[in-house]
Amino acid sequence: MSKEEYYDFNLELIVKEILRRKAKKVLVQVPDGLKHLFLPHLEELKSRLSNVDFIVSGDPAYGGCFLAEAEAKMLRADLIVHIGHTEYYRSEVPSIYIEAFSKTIASEGLIEELTSYLKDIHAKKVGLCAVLQHLNMIHKVKTILEENGIKVFIGKHGPYTRYNGQIVGCDYVSALSINDDVEAHVIISGGLFHPLGLGLATLRPIVKIDPYENKITDMSSYIQKILKKRYWEIMRSLDAEKFGIIVGFRKGQFRPKIISNIEEIIREKKKTSVRIVMDIVTEERLANLGNFFDAYIITSCPRIPIDNIVKFKKPVLTPGEAHMVLTGKLEKYRFPW
Amino acid sequence: MSKEEYYDFNLELIVKEILRRKAKKVLVQVPDGLKHLFLPHLEELKSRLSNVDFIVSGDPAYGGCFLAEAEAKMLRADLIVHIGHTEYYRSEVPSIYIEAFSKTIASEGLIEELTSYLKDIHAKKVGLCAVLQHLNMIHKVKTILEENGIKVFIGKHGPYTRYNGQIVGCDYVSALSINDDVEAHVIISGGLFHPLGLGLATLRPIVKIDPYENKITDMSSYIQKILKKRYWEIMRSLDAEKFGIIVGFRKGQFRPKIISNIEEIIREKKKTSVRIVMDIVTEERLANLGNFFDAYIITSCPRIPIDNIVKFKKPVLTPGEAHMVLTGKLEKYRFPW
Repeated sequence: MSKEEYYDFNLELIVKEILRRKAKKVLVQVPDGLKHLFLPHLEELKSRLSNVDFIVSGDPAYGGCFLAEAEAKMLRADLIVHIGHTEYYRSEVPSIYIEAFSKTIASEGLIEELTSYLKDIHAKKVGLCAVLQHLNMIHKVKTILEENGIKVFIGKHGPYTRYNGQIVGCDYVSALSINDDVEAHVIISGGLFHPLGLGLATLRPIVKIDPYENKITDMSSYIQKILKKRYWEIMRSLDAEKFGIIVGFRKGQFRPKIISNIEEIIREKKKTSVRIVMDIVTEERLANLGNFFDAYIITSCPRIPIDNIVKFKKPVLTPGEAHMVLTGKLEKYRFPW
Repeated sequence: MSKEEYYDFNLELIVKEILRRKAKKVLVQVPDGLKHLFLPHLEELKSRLSNVDFIVSGDPAYGGCFLAEAEAKMLRADLIVHIGHTEYYRSEVPSIYIEAFSKTIASEGLIEELTSYLKDIHAKKVGLCAVLQHLNMIHKVKTILEENGIKVFIGKHGPYTRYNGQIVGCDYVSALSINDDVEAHVIISGGLFHPLGLGLATLRPIVKIDPYENKITDMSSYIQKILKKRYWEIMRSLDAEKFGIIVGFRKGQFRPKIISNIEEIIREKKKTSVRIVMDIVTEERLANLGNFFDAYIITSCPRIPIDNIVKFKKPVLTPGEAHMVLTGKLEKYRFPW
């Protein structure tokens, strides 16, 4: 299959919804990794709907939280077609969500390899979850594991996910709801991002089945490494007096309750803070603030402190981490928060 | 003077305007280079106006065009205090502009050095302009040059500037309006950005008097080097068939007329294009679009193709450059457009 065919962009549904809603100006938003795969399909949409004006968002789309509502309003688009995520919040601009399931399916051989590995680590009861793109194979994996005598739990989805067994970067409710029933979690996913989040949230062994790489990986040592880094980051913030509180600009990343909670503790502890609104947090943007702040607390997206590729010079904390720093109470890692 | 004192942030005016307008929630926007210098003053504002809620924008503020209106609306701020630029467009959110004049003034010795240099290059009639931060010394420079027999022209400001003699990255009207009267332009500025724009706009010799570095620099060879690069970029776009038209997200960078002009020529020439809305253009964001486009045309800010620090892999053109590419007509460089 050619690379444009790796994902099912469900053009029929897109065409149907645009016609049904009589949309005239459509803003299309696609996650960074899928943008180049989607663009060739846009040509088909344009030729099938020649009266519709299509505009593509070229900015990042990290999740449903990053819905390009502000852009749609400015451009007076009457529909957002958001690809690759499920709905995160109810937007003011009409929006449809296209799952973009992967057509790369884990082979039976790979699932049998997973079975042996779980037996090796004596995991007889496991949680099973998947990122949206691979949810289409969750039942196949469940069936084969159960045929091999492993008990599989798939939890109910959380507030920011749509399907049972689905997890996103900041919602692991599906795994957490069955965390007490299992000895390990299996995640169908590529990359490090989602398995890491799952590990930080559940604090259990995580085994990844990766359909892209056709590989089974025990993620536990990687997750441990990150946990060590996070506690180091917490430790080096203990003397901080001035906090920069990063406030999200996107509606899905604006969390006023978390902001006021944190500010209240800061006031109680006689420390100071300034609110800083930031769309995308980078080391460059923090560096521009100079040495004024001792540490930053990110209230927008809990993944920013953990996953930034470039190392932040100053301590950059999640609200959960900041809570430990400010109260001085050592706790088990809380994620996401 | 301590570095927080390098610029006059006019706190009295800020306090007066906040009180006069009875603002309760104020979003403060400062250009990247001044952010760390302004932050210590924010403490004073907070203590003098303890009932006012201050939020700082941590995202770039490249110009008045980049006014954080969308952020202010989302945060329900009732006033934007925008520092370091003059008004670019009339915003919906009440906004005040604070000039932030530099307190680093060119010495008389340096201005005399400028005089000798202008005599060396036989420039008897010169245009004089300055970036906003250094406009406070334009009359001193003019006086000393004229005392030395050099005729000095200061042009009327353009649509995106406020003061005569003021230039910004995309408005050189003040220099262009007297371009036919002069043999060279003198600019009071640090850095390369503004002298380069002045050279591209006027195509005359540019001499920079830099109060920060206490130095006179003839910018002409640097400007020539950039012009060569631009014509190379134009040349390597000649076979392009598919254009990505970058549309600005910020109101001050959204130029629908330029977009539709370019699209019309593209249609006439039987080439194709897709509109891509992008807040900040980076090589990373363009690279995420893969190989779908042969070249990009930036309709948001004309400085993006020219000034990006990281080299763009694909050709990235200003509308003026794209016009040459699409019509095949070789013209003198047009900037800004």
